[in-house]
Amino acid sequence: MPRPSVTEAETPYPEHLRDMVEEYLEGLTFSSSDHLELQEMAGTEGLVDAMRHSLLAGGKRIRPVLALATAESLGQRAEDLLPAAAAIELVHTYSLIHDDLPAMDDDDLRRGRPTCHVLFGEDTAILAGDALFAEAVQLVAEHQPGSAETRVGILREISRATGVAGMVGGQYLDLKDAGQESPDALRRVHALKTGRLMSCAVHCALVLARPEPAVDTALRRFARELGLLFQIVDDILDVEGSEEDLGKAVGADARQGKITYVSVHGIAEARRLAGEAHGRALACLSALPGPTGDLVDITDLTYLRQH
Amino acid sequence: MPRPSVTEAETPYPEHLRDMVEEYLEGLTFSSSDHLELQEMAGTEGLVDAMRHSLLAGGKRIRPVLALATAESLGQRAEDLLPAAAAIELVHTYSLIHDDLPAMDDDDLRRGRPTCHVLFGEDTAILAGDALFAEAVQLVAEHQPGSAETRVGILREISRATGVAGMVGGQYLDLKDAGQESPDALRRVHALKTGRLMSCAVHCALVLARPEPAVDTALRRFARELGLLFQIVDDILDVEGSEEDLGKAVGADARQGKITYVSVHGIAEARRLAGEAHGRALACLSALPGPTGDLVDITDLTYLRQH
Repeated sequence: MPRPSVTEAETPYPEHLRDMVEEYLEGLTFSSSDHLELQEMAGTEGLVDAMRHSLLAGGKRIRPVLALATAESLGQRAEDLLPAAAAIELVHTYSLIHDDLPAMDDDDLRRGRPTCHVLFGEDTAILAGDALFAEAVQLVAEHQPGSAETRVGILREISRATGVAGMVGGQYLDLKDAGQESPDALRRVHALKTGRLMSCAVHCALVLARPEPAVDTALRRFARELGLLFQIVDDILDVEGSEEDLGKAVGADARQGKITYVSVHGIAEARRLAGEAHGRALACLSALPGPTGDLVDITDLTYLRQH
Repeated sequence: MPRPSVTEAETPYPEHLRDMVEEYLEGLTFSSSDHLELQEMAGTEGLVDAMRHSLLAGGKRIRPVLALATAESLGQRAEDLLPAAAAIELVHTYSLIHDDLPAMDDDDLRRGRPTCHVLFGEDTAILAGDALFAEAVQLVAEHQPGSAETRVGILREISRATGVAGMVGGQYLDLKDAGQESPDALRRVHALKTGRLMSCAVHCALVLARPEPAVDTALRRFARELGLLFQIVDDILDVEGSEEDLGKAVGADARQGKITYVSVHGIAEARRLAGEAHGRALACLSALPGPTGDLVDITDLTYLRQH
């Protein structure tokens, strides 16, 4: 990987925020506290099992941790953005479940575990993804602290980041190999497919904290650079990573003839581009007034990660 | 059908509300007015075509029309609930697209037209459903008139009606033939699968208008009875309807061994149950102070419809 002298294991990461996210996700049972409603839901446990199988597969939880670290850098309590941060992880999980379906990328393995449809069937996997999206919206609408304006603002960010001009639009472009046309088209596909939801994590913190315009602008630029960095490193790992580290088959992009930063630019240039994005992301952070240590760690880990 | 002396064609329906919904849905292009964002979205037109193919297939638009008629009965302007009403139709459409997928009900025909995956491929159909859900949330978050509290309240209703304790939970139960266990289990499956989104249309109007408790209670009960009526008639039509009227193959439930009101109770008893639900729904309306003519027409048409 880019800087082999420093390993991922040595890179600090805001583990306290990851633990907070993990514990919150573990607590989501997607059932009601209303007795009558619980009776109506009887029999949906298998659906919840499928949702939780994919949701609780571990990982760095980079999107929610990014949301919480951004909130803290803006003087907010991490707890006060937890429902929105978790909602973003639910949306991310739903997109992975649908992406792995036979009609899509047809992946059997994710984070070292069987994918949702392998374990629960294609029909249940489609519904598990759908339900995670609905539960994400509900989480924000019902449990996000702050004013109704804050909750609507966060739902606006999440829905914009996931619709046609966001994640799902990017998945569609990727499906249609739109990235093949030009390096700019490739950047565009990834900006929608992975960049928008990553940025959304930062934007949700901005909705909560409403900082002054200069800070807002710097953090939005940081979010874009981090998303770009994340995708370039993803493409490098698909070529250079180990299956053991990644928990999934490597070389899938090349086998599927996918256009990636590596296939377009070659590995050396892809590494250089990652280094540049890393540098630009850190430069954005250096302009901020608040504590940015956790955001720097997240940026470094995104650069140095092995999976 | 239940009362063969009165035909569906003779039953009045709030066509002005349907026209309002249809025009609004036609105007949804799911693209941005922001020039930079439009550039990023280039190439997603095929996804939007798939979404609009299924969204603009016509029909009675019973859910959004019900939302608007309820709003008017509470002294609100129909226009002021149009984004929420349209959002419910987007959600309904996404559920049909996913329901028709080969891994689910595997239907080729819907409203007399090829289903989304037949025309656009399974992968695009999955994404078209996903995108419709995201765009539904965005529609309410960005365009619903009223306070932020109203918008959050409506998104709470929509997400609750579609999650594990709602539509998707009901689809899962249906998939697992949970309705087979008992008549009560059958009622439960349908209450979640079709009832919750139908009720949601009424609830959204209640969020906007905030009527006094007695009116609120009567309308919630009306919504439940209408949802039940809708489902029983659906099951009867699958046995007695004509393919030409329905725009889809009849007898699909029996071929798939589905448990329905007809398979459980027989056709005569199913008709009687429909008549009872129709009567109870009308009784709820008669207790309301506002103009309920359109709601009565919707209830009658739900009872007498041929498709």
